[in-house]
Amino acid sequence: MRKILLTIQYRGTKFCGWQSQENAISVEEVLEQKISELLGENIKLHASGRTDAGVHAIGQTAHFETNSNFNIHKLAQAINFGLDGDIAVLSAKEVSQNFHARYNVKQKTYVYKLYCSKITKPLKNDMCAHIKFDLKLDLMRKAAQFFIGEHNFFAFCSSKTQVKDFVRKIYSLEIKKVEDEYHFAVTGNGFLYNMVRIIVGTLVDVGGGKIKPEEIPEIIQSQDRKRAGKTMPAHGLYLKEVQY
Amino acid sequence: MRKILLTIQYRGTKFCGWQSQENAISVEEVLEQKISELLGENIKLHASGRTDAGVHAIGQTAHFETNSNFNIHKLAQAINFGLDGDIAVLSAKEVSQNFHARYNVKQKTYVYKLYCSKITKPLKNDMCAHIKFDLKLDLMRKAAQFFIGEHNFFAFCSSKTQVKDFVRKIYSLEIKKVEDEYHFAVTGNGFLYNMVRIIVGTLVDVGGGKIKPEEIPEIIQSQDRKRAGKTMPAHGLYLKEVQY
Repeated sequence: MRKILLTIQYRGTKFCGWQSQENAISVEEVLEQKISELLGENIKLHASGRTDAGVHAIGQTAHFETNSNFNIHKLAQAINFGLDGDIAVLSAKEVSQNFHARYNVKQKTYVYKLYCSKITKPLKNDMCAHIKFDLKLDLMRKAAQFFIGEHNFFAFCSSKTQVKDFVRKIYSLEIKKVEDEYHFAVTGNGFLYNMVRIIVGTLVDVGGGKIKPEEIPEIIQSQDRKRAGKTMPAHGLYLKEVQY
Repeated sequence: MRKILLTIQYRGTKFCGWQSQENAISVEEVLEQKISELLGENIKLHASGRTDAGVHAIGQTAHFETNSNFNIHKLAQAINFGLDGDIAVLSAKEVSQNFHARYNVKQKTYVYKLYCSKITKPLKNDMCAHIKFDLKLDLMRKAAQFFIGEHNFFAFCSSKTQVKDFVRKIYSLEIKKVEDEYHFAVTGNGFLYNMVRIIVGTLVDVGGGKIKPEEIPEIIQSQDRKRAGKTMPAHGLYLKEVQY
């Protein structure tokens, strides 16, 4: 038995997310079908985690087991050949038997992209969230610092979650301004359901003057979802990198 | 009679181009229908020029005449409301009776975006052309200089053109590297059919070592389409700005 780890890029727009669902097309399903056909085996993918409908991945990871002797150096290309242009395997490598794409994750980086403009910009459609007012970068950067470290992020988690432990560690949260866009890059040891989107929603409230940067520690400690900002839309979110 | 000038952004992917055609949806048609409905008149748009199927516009311009007293400050928003997300009017202003969006153009800027990578990147799909090998920026920049000035660009024009005068003036041609992307920004007093896409195709040949920068003046002078590079795909091209 060989274990193969794939790095995968996808545009999430037309998928119901990573995970297979009835009556909708998922990234997982498209890839499992393609790889199963290619290797002549029933392949099951295990991703680093799910992504929601509309969320993009610059570098999602997933492993699978196979009995095939397929040349690892030709695998990515072979999977991509004829694959829908919205998904591509960027690389494939063999990993040890005890590796698991989800359980072995050390850290993940997400990027959230939004742009500020009175008018919708079609060229950013589905790839960048839209805010109609401008944001104050210095206030958002000040607020961002309070998220760093180990905290109970219950206030920054969708109620739809099934987890019981809400403690996560954030290593960095950087905000870059690129023309009319703001890019929020968050690295942590793990993320709760909708956590990045709620953190960015809260930072948008800070940048727009609704919340003061100094209020962030209090909001975190409150463990009250209602005190944090809105969940930003899925299409601004990118799973950038998974590290093992 | 009032004359209104619109600045328009669109993602060209699903349109047959700017100009209306039978059996296909054009940007012009979608906008004319929307504005005609809104103003209760039969509106005819006159653009700065056509764009081909798949070509994007950051800031296309078009004018129309109307008898309506519609508030100019509310017009862009009203047109965009309920409009397909792939098109938006960025601004609207009143212009003088003798203005014409095409005949009064002083200069236009196009940007061509491509990325170099062995593997297709879904996130750049339809928005950035793909080259499988890397390019030499210094060689391309050297070659770019030879395009500047007034030249007969017959060698850089599709044979499908109907124009008779092939002399155009290029004011600037700048190449920026942004991560794995190259952005070519060309400003000129006018462009022949496919001219930007053929110039970039020729610069790609320079960057890949097929053509030497010093050969460019000779290729221009030859007026031989076969000596210039390939026509790059439409989806890397953006009409950035039209100046009057």
